[in-house]
Amino acid sequence: MSRKASLSGFHEWLPAERLVELHVQDTLRRVFELHGFANIETRAVETLGTLLRKGEIDKEVYAVSRLQGEAPEKAEDTNRLALHFDLTVPFARYVTENAGHLAFPFRRYQIQKVWRGERPQEGRAREFTQADIDVVGEGTLPFRYDVDVALVMAEALSELPIGDFTIRINNRKLAEGFYRGVGLNDTAGVLRCIDKLEKIGEDEVARLLREEIGATDEQAQKALALARIRTEDPSFVDQVRALDVHDELLEEGLSELAEVIGQLHRRMPGRAVADLSIARGLDYYTGTVYETMLDGHEQLGSICSGGRYDSLATKGNRTFPGVGLSIGVTRLVMRMLSQQMAEASRSVPTAVYVALTQDEDWETALDTAALLRSRGVAAEVAVRAEKFGKQIKYADRRGIPYVWFTSINDGVPNHEVKDIRSGEQVAADPHTWAPAAEDLAPTVSAPTSDIN
Amino acid sequence: MSRKASLSGFHEWLPAERLVELHVQDTLRRVFELHGFANIETRAVETLGTLLRKGEIDKEVYAVSRLQGEAPEKAEDTNRLALHFDLTVPFARYVTENAGHLAFPFRRYQIQKVWRGERPQEGRAREFTQADIDVVGEGTLPFRYDVDVALVMAEALSELPIGDFTIRINNRKLAEGFYRGVGLNDTAGVLRCIDKLEKIGEDEVARLLREEIGATDEQAQKALALARIRTEDPSFVDQVRALDVHDELLEEGLSELAEVIGQLHRRMPGRAVADLSIARGLDYYTGTVYETMLDGHEQLGSICSGGRYDSLATKGNRTFPGVGLSIGVTRLVMRMLSQQMAEASRSVPTAVYVALTQDEDWETALDTAALLRSRGVAAEVAVRAEKFGKQIKYADRRGIPYVWFTSINDGVPNHEVKDIRSGEQVAADPHTWAPAAEDLAPTVSAPTSDIN
Repeated sequence: MSRKASLSGFHEWLPAERLVELHVQDTLRRVFELHGFANIETRAVETLGTLLRKGEIDKEVYAVSRLQGEAPEKAEDTNRLALHFDLTVPFARYVTENAGHLAFPFRRYQIQKVWRGERPQEGRAREFTQADIDVVGEGTLPFRYDVDVALVMAEALSELPIGDFTIRINNRKLAEGFYRGVGLNDTAGVLRCIDKLEKIGEDEVARLLREEIGATDEQAQKALALARIRTEDPSFVDQVRALDVHDELLEEGLSELAEVIGQLHRRMPGRAVADLSIARGLDYYTGTVYETMLDGHEQLGSICSGGRYDSLATKGNRTFPGVGLSIGVTRLVMRMLSQQMAEASRSVPTAVYVALTQDEDWETALDTAALLRSRGVAAEVAVRAEKFGKQIKYADRRGIPYVWFTSINDGVPNHEVKDIRSGEQVAADPHTWAPAAEDLAPTVSAPTSDIN
Repeated sequence: MSRKASLSGFHEWLPAERLVELHVQDTLRRVFELHGFANIETRAVETLGTLLRKGEIDKEVYAVSRLQGEAPEKAEDTNRLALHFDLTVPFARYVTENAGHLAFPFRRYQIQKVWRGERPQEGRAREFTQADIDVVGEGTLPFRYDVDVALVMAEALSELPIGDFTIRINNRKLAEGFYRGVGLNDTAGVLRCIDKLEKIGEDEVARLLREEIGATDEQAQKALALARIRTEDPSFVDQVRALDVHDELLEEGLSELAEVIGQLHRRMPGRAVADLSIARGLDYYTGTVYETMLDGHEQLGSICSGGRYDSLATKGNRTFPGVGLSIGVTRLVMRMLSQQMAEASRSVPTAVYVALTQDEDWETALDTAALLRSRGVAAEVAVRAEKFGKQIKYADRRGIPYVWFTSINDGVPNHEVKDIRSGEQVAADPHTWAPAAEDLAPTVSAPTSDIN
């Protein structure tokens, strides 16, 4: 993270950093698969028509064109190709194209790069990896999947070396029903104002509500009172009831949010709060909305967000509702690395470096390495006989924990292995020897604290 | 594979097909790591200047530009961005940029998508995945790494369900030395002609050598005699010697190729041949060259190619020689699927579908699933109590092998699990029950033969 990207916004990891990212991806994959999510990948490019379907995002899109294309492409051509900027839009297209081959509800995860043409001076990533889970139904999708996906993400995040986090959950029905109940019918407008709470504070939001939405002082205060409610268990329901607002949609939202929070509180205590200020203004959610803060790193923004769409996709008169969450893997890994939250125990997979006593022993060394690998021990073979000190130094510089020495007397090989950290050297049989379990492969964890 | 891509040249897999691709990628990763290769990823975009460094490939490149960029970008601007078309050029750039942070010889693998703006009518993939291994040195790179990378790829490919394959190996020094030895000094020109052997045959190549290179009939016949040599062991050396051509570079090439073929013959018998017709005309190799044919699928072209570069990259007066191979993962997987060489045992990770007897039992069902997952058994939970027949049908349609039933009598849950393929239903304890090992996760293998 101390290195500067050679192309602004396009980060590349060194091998040891990449191991941290791989650990995150592998952990997510394992948890997602344990919960029955199947993996897919979608192509990197979509037509502009597909990308713009959800709204105005054209400013952030990277267009793609053949360098020697027949004719210059027109900006407004919806058949023009561009790199996807998230995984939700491509997934919706994939579902409609392949609906006949999928079994619904369809559970999928997707871990891929996305691209956004952000202005470089903002210092934001232009290429980054997202990890998404979604459940999508045909026609209907029972509400319990809103609980399901939140439990899966809470479990996945809690297996990463990122410390504590808080999934903040709200419900659009609850918010919209409440605003309607107090007589504010421009619910989208109210959400837009509430979305600015953290940035501009209560007084300014109250002013916006009065000036832009035409709210009375009492209405603005009710909306702010709702946004103040935050509980780890379903007790938020009583707090909302105490505000004495009545609406059918509000009741539906209260009951849905109570079920999500109730289950998370029971199964993943301390991982989620009902936070009635969460608006996620620009996204077109229709029920549950989620965002996730890393405790102590709130200024990083949400690392895992999502929600329920009544209509993730449509095809003719078929509707595909969905609910899902997306982790910003790159954003998370950048923070993990810059804050030393996690590090790899070494930068190479190699556990054993098989040294050479003389150049002619290469055959024997290859045999030794093959025996080690056949039992899952990653091994590399020296290609030149050099002084042992030099060979040990080479292994040390790369973080390889063991060096293997073989001397051949009267055609009989004599094997020894040295732990170069402790210096301990012992006789060993390549048919049976194994390193300590923690040395078998690089591991990723929080760094051991430095005495300095 | 029966489905048509909605965007020509951009293939997307259904979940069961993706499992075959994932199996290929996971297998390659495991073998590469056992041999000490570290993973990296490079950004998807490079500047045109970097991409064009190696030669004329501009016709196949996809340029990338911000849709709302400040000014239209000029075609000739070398700072313009484009998608990478292979993983070698980006890796060379990565090595020069990060040389100070890498330990040489640096062993890396890279599995990523690449893009080529091929004309759609050619029916070729425009987006595909490559899996590369390279060893790169600083200043020098001992020849034995040419043997090393070939052994790694032979082992990796032999672990895939793709049947037999043949790595064809040649050596540029051998070929160039031989041509020089017979008096043909335009060695690149001879290589270009020899490269056409499979397409146009010996007579036409002889004509080309005479007309384009100015070869005498005898010189042309010598060049063709060399190209006819093909042996699985180092006996090709004697066959070359029998042609009575003398050159220092030829000797060097003979000795190098003999070492590669000798080791492969010894350690991976039947997987490699010295094929002295291999030219790999357009690539700038300087020693060993490799290509790989799937036996019986030769018309597919090479599925794994590469070679030695004396100068993979340079930085000031530092030179980084390298040797490596690249597998065309997408090309291979397309063939595996279209020829039914491999299939997934099911399309979802789920091993157990936990059914619901009544809606109120969801809590208990979530507990059961959590217990199964804690021991690595992938489980999904029904969200609605429906007729058992309907729940079994749902599991069956998705290929989930087991359905779990829980009835609660006087608060005591009574668990049973049904193998829906055999219909066998037995009492089971969620704390201890495990599926048959082969049912734990989807497996990928050659399909069991069909009686029809």
